[in-house]
Amino acid sequence: MSVKPVLIQMDAADNVAIVGNDGGLAKDTVLPSGLRLVQAIPQAHKVALHAIAKGAAICRYGVTIGYAMQDLPAGSWVHERVIQMPEPRNFEQLPMATKSPVLDPSKPDLSGATFMGYRNPDGSVGTRNLLGVTTTVQCVSGVLAHAMTRIQKELLPRYPHVDGAVALDHAYGCGVAIDAPDAVIPIRTVRNISLNPNFGGELMVVSLGCEKLQPERLLPPGSIALQPAAVEVGKASEASAAGLDVVRLQDPKYVGFQSMVQAIVDGADRHLQRLNRRTRECVSVSELVVGVQCGGSDAFSGATANPVVGYATDLLVQAGATVMFSENTEVRDAVDQLTARAASEAVAADIVKELAWYDAYLQRGHVDRSANTTPGNKAGGLSNIVEKAMGSIVKSGTQAISHVLSPGEKLRRDQRGLVFAATPASDFICGTLQLAAGMNLHVFTTGRGTPYGLAECPVIKVATRTDLATRWHDLMDVNAGTVADGDSTLAASGLALFELMLEVASGAHQPWAERWGLHNQLVLFNPAPVT
Amino acid sequence: MSVKPVLIQMDAADNVAIVGNDGGLAKDTVLPSGLRLVQAIPQAHKVALHAIAKGAAICRYGVTIGYAMQDLPAGSWVHERVIQMPEPRNFEQLPMATKSPVLDPSKPDLSGATFMGYRNPDGSVGTRNLLGVTTTVQCVSGVLAHAMTRIQKELLPRYPHVDGAVALDHAYGCGVAIDAPDAVIPIRTVRNISLNPNFGGELMVVSLGCEKLQPERLLPPGSIALQPAAVEVGKASEASAAGLDVVRLQDPKYVGFQSMVQAIVDGADRHLQRLNRRTRECVSVSELVVGVQCGGSDAFSGATANPVVGYATDLLVQAGATVMFSENTEVRDAVDQLTARAASEAVAADIVKELAWYDAYLQRGHVDRSANTTPGNKAGGLSNIVEKAMGSIVKSGTQAISHVLSPGEKLRRDQRGLVFAATPASDFICGTLQLAAGMNLHVFTTGRGTPYGLAECPVIKVATRTDLATRWHDLMDVNAGTVADGDSTLAASGLALFELMLEVASGAHQPWAERWGLHNQLVLFNPAPVT
Repeated sequence: MSVKPVLIQMDAADNVAIVGNDGGLAKDTVLPSGLRLVQAIPQAHKVALHAIAKGAAICRYGVTIGYAMQDLPAGSWVHERVIQMPEPRNFEQLPMATKSPVLDPSKPDLSGATFMGYRNPDGSVGTRNLLGVTTTVQCVSGVLAHAMTRIQKELLPRYPHVDGAVALDHAYGCGVAIDAPDAVIPIRTVRNISLNPNFGGELMVVSLGCEKLQPERLLPPGSIALQPAAVEVGKASEASAAGLDVVRLQDPKYVGFQSMVQAIVDGADRHLQRLNRRTRECVSVSELVVGVQCGGSDAFSGATANPVVGYATDLLVQAGATVMFSENTEVRDAVDQLTARAASEAVAADIVKELAWYDAYLQRGHVDRSANTTPGNKAGGLSNIVEKAMGSIVKSGTQAISHVLSPGEKLRRDQRGLVFAATPASDFICGTLQLAAGMNLHVFTTGRGTPYGLAECPVIKVATRTDLATRWHDLMDVNAGTVADGDSTLAASGLALFELMLEVASGAHQPWAERWGLHNQLVLFNPAPVT
Repeated sequence: MSVKPVLIQMDAADNVAIVGNDGGLAKDTVLPSGLRLVQAIPQAHKVALHAIAKGAAICRYGVTIGYAMQDLPAGSWVHERVIQMPEPRNFEQLPMATKSPVLDPSKPDLSGATFMGYRNPDGSVGTRNLLGVTTTVQCVSGVLAHAMTRIQKELLPRYPHVDGAVALDHAYGCGVAIDAPDAVIPIRTVRNISLNPNFGGELMVVSLGCEKLQPERLLPPGSIALQPAAVEVGKASEASAAGLDVVRLQDPKYVGFQSMVQAIVDGADRHLQRLNRRTRECVSVSELVVGVQCGGSDAFSGATANPVVGYATDLLVQAGATVMFSENTEVRDAVDQLTARAASEAVAADIVKELAWYDAYLQRGHVDRSANTTPGNKAGGLSNIVEKAMGSIVKSGTQAISHVLSPGEKLRRDQRGLVFAATPASDFICGTLQLAAGMNLHVFTTGRGTPYGLAECPVIKVATRTDLATRWHDLMDVNAGTVADGDSTLAASGLALFELMLEVASGAHQPWAERWGLHNQLVLFNPAPVT
């Protein structure tokens, strides 16, 4: 057996590299450098390139990811049990907007690129033409589910230009401390998801009646000022109040269960008629609002998929589009890199503010730094959160960070470029908050594999390894493992991903999750108590 | 127009009573007592029976629910804007197990009553014969949804003795602080729901693979010792590990999406074959584990529906069955009544411990006492949480409180009688936690109206008013409004509810939510941070 050993080293200063070979490398394998492995090392796990003395720094991505807890001979396996995790960087004396990245002339200028999207009344652009049915409280979800079944079966076939109908269910709305300071987060999240560009401004709300989160509190008149279509339909609707189209199940006019279902179906029909009259038009790539996220990460995430996404991020940002990156606990240890790349000191200060708030939130719940990194991350070679963070932030590319969003906030139309949308790293919560921020296209990288999908927005899934892409051939849309295999380059794969994004945004290509109808539930971030 | 004024006074010591009439009472209406209303008063709202001076106590249920913020003439409307809410009772010098309630000889002895249930290997009894598919993480829910559709369509028709199949989806499992002190609550909740008597001990788990909540952590060997059926099936399954039947989507043997779906369908088939061989048998009423809850309450809740439920609670407890009541924030202001009714000082101390923990949890999130009582509660005449609490605890009847459960804990087989299961008052979280506690029948009272339902357990819904029961004729199972109408008594309605419970538990009667398939999602109580 003559396996050609593949090692992936991220930075010339690194004293570890990861094993690229499927199935890992056996003891006594001789690397091209002449180094002999002193023990077997699994795929994606780290090998010591030189002898590392006890207490010395272990370096990957050119960054100290920890300290050796024992002498580590050259050729030995450097796993999480021999690495002391460094303390988190404190927020004092960070480099604030010191780096000022400039456009990278080595990357193609794609600012003339376009896609076919749905222009909304407020100027934003949808990549899909969906009916979103907002809910104020989970109490209505059973009734709404019946109505959605009828809408799917009876109405959608009559409206071929509508891509689907989505119940915006969630667990919030009542039995929650709605006046607690942190309640602002889940409330604005539900509000802003309703205003996502993929719903075309056709607001429709199903409410119970007695819940804490009243429709007028969820969507006060000011919040729908940019939604003329909704206001107009609202006026035509019997159930409207202050321009908002609401079906309140407790309204005395509803007698019996089926009358409630019928009211929702009738309301949906009015909105679907309008949505069905819309057509795609050619719009600039700058109308893309891409949310990038990783989940089920392994040590390849930061070596293949995330750098490919990072390259595409640079292309998008240079072309005038918007890319949001997130996941507080997975950027925390790279805070100095982010503040340095901030477009201004004010943006750098906003980054610190969000991460400090999150530190305090975690401390309130007595959470330590070992909370992030899952069993799967570790099995996949990620020794700790520092190493994971260095691989995670690569998705954000190299450009300047222009804006920062708090959880659940919506990006304004005049905020473009690279955006740090501060969210928990939970796949579902991050995706939900990026939808609230206005995401119209989602890119999700995974090393261990996840069937993640969203009903509200197309999701392109990028595999870190060829093995995963091959096995999950009908779940993974892009194989970034080809970069490790030597069959592609970051630049080529990054450009191909950029082009795929335009195709998906245009509706010309359906990613696998969309084709199968694979959808996770929305999960709100509610740091406030329930009652 | 000669409306006969109906006033409902709960206790002879009360200086307010509520208006029973649909549509309320007009100004100048003369009550039977000769009192003339000085203003119009809506239905379910309070009228001052005597002049109440500024600062004087306002009494309902024989308890001070607040203090007059201004002079209130006799016949005036006593609403929440004129009532100063009292401070919450502190936990010092409470009466501990002082009341020692005894069996009430005026209530019929129904200990010989039986129902037809499914006896489980661990001795517990199911009221339904359901396949429950446990999930370790939300990542799998999209794939599981596809499998559930196939299970419903292809398998269930072949197994007529199985009542249904339920995906036990939730938002937990990853992206959470799984080692935080409070993480024990959501973890044991998911575990104990899997062990609910309505699932017959047929444990089946769908896992992603890399998630924090690994199947062996969710269901360690000890936890399934009482589930011989599951262990046996587990052994027969390829995917089993330590006796647990697990489909791990990341297992390399699954190639492509459909192979994962097929593995779940195949696993379900094995369990369904076993479930289908089960038959109902005659068991004692003492095997009932009834969870009582109220939601969308109004001032009638404590006057009609909750007292009817309380009467049935007494019948059940006297007959040897188990009744769980819950909703921390809705019993908090009656803590002295609960500790007095505790069966022992230890039980009283447990009640205080749970409520004190919850006080601290709310304070951590800066929540004040106004957080409970919804806009609908107030519109329905409930002025504050004290008044709401007095009406809420009536569901617990009059018997001694035998046991206390922390959130997510499961009742042991030797713990029967009246149980305080400490949960948030959120309808969904309370129902979810009562399922974890082992509930096999749910009784839910509502004044404003809610279409609440659970897929895991039948839910009997009790309306507080005839108007609601009439309008929601196919959603409300019991009309307790007849008590206010003078068409029934608490004793007659309580006994009828007891008999309905036996019928529903036996599968001889399907409540409306079950007939329609109206189900809310499970919502976990996770006081720990997400990551």
